[in-house]
Amino acid sequence: MRILRSVKVMQKITTNLRKRGKSIGFVPTMGALHAGHFSLIRQSRKENNYTAVSIFLNPTQFGPNEDYRRYPRNLKADATLCKKTGVDFIFNPARNQIYPKGYKTEIKIDKLSDLLCGKFRPGHFAAVATVVNKLFNIVEPDTAYFGQKDAQQAIIIQRMVKDLYMRLKIKVMPTIREPDGLAMSSRNNYLSASERRDAVVLYNALETAKTMIRQGISNPSKIILTMRKIILKKKSARIQYINIVDLNELKTVEKIQEKVLIALAIWIGKTRLIDNAIITPARN
Amino acid sequence: MRILRSVKVMQKITTNLRKRGKSIGFVPTMGALHAGHFSLIRQSRKENNYTAVSIFLNPTQFGPNEDYRRYPRNLKADATLCKKTGVDFIFNPARNQIYPKGYKTEIKIDKLSDLLCGKFRPGHFAAVATVVNKLFNIVEPDTAYFGQKDAQQAIIIQRMVKDLYMRLKIKVMPTIREPDGLAMSSRNNYLSASERRDAVVLYNALETAKTMIRQGISNPSKIILTMRKIILKKKSARIQYINIVDLNELKTVEKIQEKVLIALAIWIGKTRLIDNAIITPARN
Repeated sequence: MRILRSVKVMQKITTNLRKRGKSIGFVPTMGALHAGHFSLIRQSRKENNYTAVSIFLNPTQFGPNEDYRRYPRNLKADATLCKKTGVDFIFNPARNQIYPKGYKTEIKIDKLSDLLCGKFRPGHFAAVATVVNKLFNIVEPDTAYFGQKDAQQAIIIQRMVKDLYMRLKIKVMPTIREPDGLAMSSRNNYLSASERRDAVVLYNALETAKTMIRQGISNPSKIILTMRKIILKKKSARIQYINIVDLNELKTVEKIQEKVLIALAIWIGKTRLIDNAIITPARN
Repeated sequence: MRILRSVKVMQKITTNLRKRGKSIGFVPTMGALHAGHFSLIRQSRKENNYTAVSIFLNPTQFGPNEDYRRYPRNLKADATLCKKTGVDFIFNPARNQIYPKGYKTEIKIDKLSDLLCGKFRPGHFAAVATVVNKLFNIVEPDTAYFGQKDAQQAIIIQRMVKDLYMRLKIKVMPTIREPDGLAMSSRNNYLSASERRDAVVLYNALETAKTMIRQGISNPSKIILTMRKIILKKKSARIQYINIVDLNELKTVEKIQEKVLIALAIWIGKTRLIDNAIITPARN
């Protein structure tokens, strides 16, 4: 396994692999790797000759009051685990490699960027789309892998790739969960023991919603009210949003008739956690 | 020479050429080809195994009161001339090929898009950057060729390619002019005979500016005032802007000490013409 810090060297390597007809799978990450990332890496290994993982804690996608400074960093542990999992390349560029002096280009996915999490994190998804676009052009993968846990991110990246005719496939893999149901996230590291116990309410609320929809309840307000009640039973929990939206425009649905995305962002103490489920209603 | 209308077919062709190790030169145009375009095509032919020309009158880069409807269209003549010049592929997609239903992605080159022409054509350069990004991903050229006549466009595209680490080179070729100095433009077709005679003032004003700067005059206001006087001698002429800016940020310079871009947009009757010159001042 090689660790690359230079855009030019990374580009040269992937260009050569492509010339030799080798396929490249790519897993972009911000480090602090967990079982969710490794499920993506394993999928990439299955489907490609080579697997590249980027570890880049992208500063532009954090708001001024967000957790950029305290976000967990542990390249050494990440690298050890990547090596064990059979990763071929870690791309770990310095900030000025990705944002050299004078950069001015930003990619906006109109509206999609401003809804759900985007409402509370202005600029976040434009920053994500922009850095991912750069990484795709640097690594030139055949397929890139994303987790369903970041549902909005996955939808935005898929939209960008489609709209710009980028030459790669996007695969979105299921959310990996702790035994009690909590979605794997680097931010789970922030939780105290009691917060960790409370954090399962995100999953429990989603499971209840799933049951209600499958039972034929099609009124989103009713479902969201039930979810709110479940979540607010925990003292450490504050709701940022719970929303039930369509999968193309991410717009709030009035009535659940087709496949919907239920997305939520919940503060557990000082930690903001997100989770989601895609649910198909029962046929009448 | 083949004329392709489908993104998928165009992609397949260029993918195969790349697999076979062939180099591809690309000249993106809006049709109504003139000697300026053909100088780009000839350069591409010199430097590449294959040359692709796109002819796509991009609706999104025209403002609501601009000349999208009356912009000259003559695919047949364009194709005949392309064939004669040795073009291998014309990519001539329908609007819904480039903008399929539900597209949402836009690329902004911050600030650069809002200055000079961008000030008077809001959204224009974001639309240009976005469509060119798509075309680059579809054609995957080794080198793309642009004319210096659209100086701001060339600077913005170069910035985008650099910022996003797109895998191609951009070559900007000199402006091709009529014998009297008028820059070649598809919009010259709009001019009446007398307007055509007046239109040479853009060039004359730039030449005077060049002489002044080389004589050591470093005060932009003084130069712009002289240019204004030259232009306004023609009754058909109205000035939209004349500006002297640096080449990286396109910001107005206070004193001409380094290479500058003199850019101007002038109405000749109902036709808006642009021209520019890059000038290096005399060393003291």
